[in-house]
Amino acid sequence: MAKPNAAETLEIFDNPAPGRDYEILHVAHEFTSLCPVTGQPDFATLTFRYVADAKCVELKSLKLYLQGYRNEGVFYEALVNQLLDDLVDVLAPRSMEIVGEFSVRGGMSSVVTARFPDGTP
Amino acid sequence: MAKPNAAETLEIFDNPAPGRDYEILHVAHEFTSLCPVTGQPDFATLTFRYVADAKCVELKSLKLYLQGYRNEGVFYEALVNQLLDDLVDVLAPRSMEIVGEFSVRGGMSSVVTARFPDGTP
Amino acid sequence: MAKPNAAETLEIFDNPAPGRDYEILHVAHEFTSLCPVTGQPDFATLTFRYVADAKCVELKSLKLYLQGYRNEGVFYEALVNQLLDDLVDVLAPRSMEIVGEFSVRGGMSSVVTARFPDGTP
Amino acid sequence: MAKPNAAETLEIFDNPAPGRDYEILHVAHEFTSLCPVTGQPDFATLTFRYVADAKCVELKSLKLYLQGYRNEGVFYEALVNQLLDDLVDVLAPRSMEIVGEFSVRGGMSSVVTARFPDGTP
Amino acid sequence: MAKPNAAETLEIFDNPAPGRDYEILHVAHEFTSLCPVTGQPDFATLTFRYVADAKCVELKSLKLYLQGYRNEGVFYEALVNQLLDDLVDVLAPRSMEIVGEFSVRGGMSSVVTARFPDGTP
Amino acid sequence: MAKPNAAETLEIFDNPAPGRDYEILHVAHEFTSLCPVTGQPDFATLTFRYVADAKCVELKSLKLYLQGYRNEGVFYEALVNQLLDDLVDVLAPRSMEIVGEFSVRGGMSSVVTARFPDGTP
Amino acid sequence: MAKPNAAETLEIFDNPAPGRDYEILHVAHEFTSLCPVTGQPDFATLTFRYVADAKCVELKSLKLYLQGYRNEGVFYEALVNQLLDDLVDVLAPRSMEIVGEFSVRGGMSSVVTARFPDGTP
Amino acid sequence: MAKPNAAETLEIFDNPAPGRDYEILHVAHEFTSLCPVTGQPDFATLTFRYVADAKCVELKSLKLYLQGYRNEGVFYEALVNQLLDDLVDVLAPRSMEIVGEFSVRGGMSSVVTARFPDGTP
Amino acid sequence: MAKPNAAETLEIFDNPAPGRDYEILHVAHEFTSLCPVTGQPDFATLTFRYVADAKCVELKSLKLYLQGYRNEGVFYEALVNQLLDDLVDVLAPRSMEIVGEFSVRGGMSSVVTARFPDGTP
Amino acid sequence: MAKPNAAETLEIFDNPAPGRDYEILHVAHEFTSLCPVTGQPDFATLTFRYVADAKCVELKSLKLYLQGYRNEGVFYEALVNQLLDDLVDVLAPRSMEIVGEFSVRGGMSSVVTARFPDGTP
Repeated sequence: MAKPNAAETLEIFDNPAPGRDYEILHVAHEFTSLCPVTGQPDFATLTFRYVADAKCVELKSLKLYLQGYRNEGVFYEALVNQLLDDLVDVLAPRSMEIVGEFSVRGGMSSVVTARFPDGTP
Repeated sequence: MAKPNAAETLEIFDNPAPGRDYEILHVAHEFTSLCPVTGQPDFATLTFRYVADAKCVELKSLKLYLQGYRNEGVFYEALVNQLLDDLVDVLAPRSMEIVGEFSVRGGMSSVVTARFPDGTP
Repeated sequence: MAKPNAAETLEIFDNPAPGRDYEILHVAHEFTSLCPVTGQPDFATLTFRYVADAKCVELKSLKLYLQGYRNEGVFYEALVNQLLDDLVDVLAPRSMEIVGEFSVRGGMSSVVTARFPDGTP
Repeated sequence: MAKPNAAETLEIFDNPAPGRDYEILHVAHEFTSLCPVTGQPDFATLTFRYVADAKCVELKSLKLYLQGYRNEGVFYEALVNQLLDDLVDVLAPRSMEIVGEFSVRGGMSSVVTARFPDGTP
Repeated sequence: MAKPNAAETLEIFDNPAPGRDYEILHVAHEFTSLCPVTGQPDFATLTFRYVADAKCVELKSLKLYLQGYRNEGVFYEALVNQLLDDLVDVLAPRSMEIVGEFSVRGGMSSVVTARFPDGTP
Repeated sequence: MAKPNAAETLEIFDNPAPGRDYEILHVAHEFTSLCPVTGQPDFATLTFRYVADAKCVELKSLKLYLQGYRNEGVFYEALVNQLLDDLVDVLAPRSMEIVGEFSVRGGMSSVVTARFPDGTP
Repeated sequence: MAKPNAAETLEIFDNPAPGRDYEILHVAHEFTSLCPVTGQPDFATLTFRYVADAKCVELKSLKLYLQGYRNEGVFYEALVNQLLDDLVDVLAPRSMEIVGEFSVRGGMSSVVTARFPDGTP
Repeated sequence: MAKPNAAETLEIFDNPAPGRDYEILHVAHEFTSLCPVTGQPDFATLTFRYVADAKCVELKSLKLYLQGYRNEGVFYEALVNQLLDDLVDVLAPRSMEIVGEFSVRGGMSSVVTARFPDGTP
Repeated sequence: MAKPNAAETLEIFDNPAPGRDYEILHVAHEFTSLCPVTGQPDFATLTFRYVADAKCVELKSLKLYLQGYRNEGVFYEALVNQLLDDLVDVLAPRSMEIVGEFSVRGGMSSVVTARFPDGTP
Repeated sequence: MAKPNAAETLEIFDNPAPGRDYEILHVAHEFTSLCPVTGQPDFATLTFRYVADAKCVELKSLKLYLQGYRNEGVFYEALVNQLLDDLVDVLAPRSMEIVGEFSVRGGMSSVVTARFPDGTP
């Protein structure tokens, strides 16, 4: 899997309420990448839910980072884990969950969910 | 962020059942403010859920207080935390949760949730 | 708030399975009363959920009791607590929860929830 | 309440996986009986959720057993408890929950829920 | 019940993030088999939710394995338990849940749910 | 098909606005009869849409008339045409349409529509 | 039927675009009156669709006029025709349609539709 | 395309109201056949809408006739036209429309509609 | 009513297919203005449907033009007619329809529809 | 606008029922292209409805043709007209309609509809 450069693309800003454990949730309704086997387009809705520590992710930079996958071949399971690794690296959140809901292919749809710190959903 | 004056705008009345821990929930379906970066309008649904102690917030004054943000530039994360600070100051509730659900921008929607007393959602 | 006479209106019947803790839920979709400030009509859906002890409330008498509020002015928070007090008096249930979902007024809707025995929702 | 003969109507078959605690759920969307007071038809959706021990209920016999109530007068609270008693007698399940959702009458709808072994929902 | 050969049909690939307990969910919206009694077609939606250990199931092979039931007679309860046995054999997952939601027959619909390791839902 | 006696059951009242061609629509959500072949219950939603001339049908009598089919065996196509014949006899409407929407049986649902005066839908 | 005084309650304002045939539609979601036979409350959604000539109806006065029916007994068919007569008297519209959608009673719901100038829907 | 034998499978009965042009509509929610190119299963909802002349199609025989396509390879466009040819042959209806709504394949869904007598939809 | 300057705000571009009568539809989901009587915010969804002649309206400039009403007091009926006048002035379309759907106020919602060239909806 | 080569990509097959005017409809749920001004991704659902003459479009080739726009900048109005021109060239249909429904951008969504032969929608 080619990997968009998270460190260069994602922008952060200071958490306006670091003294409080509150939840931030961003939903990207229009994610698209390519199937690494067939090269056909895949479509997904991605949900990012986190409790910030010192830093929040800037929304537009998150959108641009995700657009970096538009022409990359990537497996569902690998994508969600890669996104979590990248965002944890950049934000060092208190906790984070990423959910990828992938469109129907051959009568089957898929959802992959990963969390930081680790824990069975 | 410019800040509507909560102390002057919000009105309260005596909790009619202070001997009971019951839940009050108000949903403001038509909140609008401005993006602090671009000046473009933002739209959100705001949910206030609380257990009153001695005081309840009067519904019309809550609406007017929220209208005070109509022409103010404010970040999502800062807004929800500011609302929680203001309402806790005025009501001293036993507990309160505020959820802001923000409209789609660039294919992405956001939800910010904060609670008093503090606690990860 | 004027108060319909619960003791005279509500009818009861013997719990057919007093040896079992089972749940009874009645939803009144067409509740209406008046705003105590403006005199304008208010509309709500009321949900009654309880575990009976010796007595169950008869459904038609519950409907008539609720119709007693049709021309009474009553605040949301006071109404739900009054209903709970009345029904607990008449039924002495093992537990009961009442939820009032009030129609949109000025772009805002409200939900009030109370429980017996007392407990934060 | 007249009572369809559960022992004669309900058929059982051997649990194909008795070594595993798995859940079986049947939903009867078209239940109808009569109001014991007015003789008017009542309509309900009934849900049966259970963990089998040695025996499972055969689906068609369950349907026929429920059709036995078509012209019987029966109160909501009594019906759901009777169904639970009958099915527990015949199946001896590890656990079972029955939910009856009754159609709107006079602007009010009702749901009755009972469980074996006993426990407040 | 005739049994499609899971060991020959299902393909696996290495879990791309074995160090993390994350959830994978596949939903097969178009499952069909035959009723073992009447020979009539049955239709279901099947949901597979698991936490992988060393291996993930390849999505297309899962689809083909399920198509192997197209002309087999199989009871609901037996099918879901068979699927769970087969997938646990091939994947050795940390945990897995399979839910079969079967279409309406005679006004009744059914859902069967099984889990590994064993546990009442 | 046994036939409830429409002339004796249906009640009428004077059209309050005979000088105007306006539409009256009644929807019976809980119709049930029996299959004339198998004796199994059938369920349907029936819609009556008409322009009254001198007479309107009284709603409660229409409900009672429909309940007369509860234990009668009747084919879909015959039922809807019988209802139309009966109501046209009693009301002599300017026009009338009856639609029967029948529940799923064996994966198939049906709708039968007849009109007075005659005309292809 | 008692009749609220339309001439005294309804307020009008000058059509801002009398040179254009455009459509105005108001939907009253919370109409309630009484059944003239049983005295029980009825609930309806009323839709007013018209093309103004010289005058438009002021929205708040329409709401107050409709509230005048809160404690009046009135048949569905008579109500809709009365509303149409009243509004045509006050507004002299180029055309108008009124639709009353009445809540379920005894498993049956009703819709009554009248138009000015007269015409079968 | 292999062709189920319509003349042998479809059963008819006498139209109970041949003097009236009324509409009969059957919806088969669970049609499945095979893709003639890949051999993969296809799924569709089929709608049959017709005005009978002397004969009506018996519902169960229609279901069995459609099941005859379960293991046949057939293109969407050819299937709908074949069904129309077969049913017109057997029923000689006054008019008939058949609509096939096919499940998503590769992010694309399809609907094919044919009518007798011929006419652009 | 204060009037945003349409001629200065709205931008146009050349119709890419002037030889064809095709339809363009833009929906503004987040329109807000003020009530000219109370100064309270109003909310609406506005739909613009037109057949272009030589010119199309640029989407972003349409959004900015609509934002010009954010702090203006304007009646529903006047607003929709003003929008139609402005857009017809700037675009000279072959035809255009504007629909304003306004949020619930006091239990009532409204829709105003105007067309060019003039015609009753 | 860069233009995928329709003549080379689109494949056709013989209409299986050229003697009948029947309708074929394909919906592409996952179309994506780029905004020609900002380079940002656009998303749309495209609907193709046509009556074939001698030729039908093969579904998979249509999907591939549409994927050719994935990295092309194209205006909404130009895209829909280009698609119509290309498909009419290749298929010479008796009639065709193409509808593009574009995702929300800045609180506004758009739909463009074109037809062959020409005609205002």
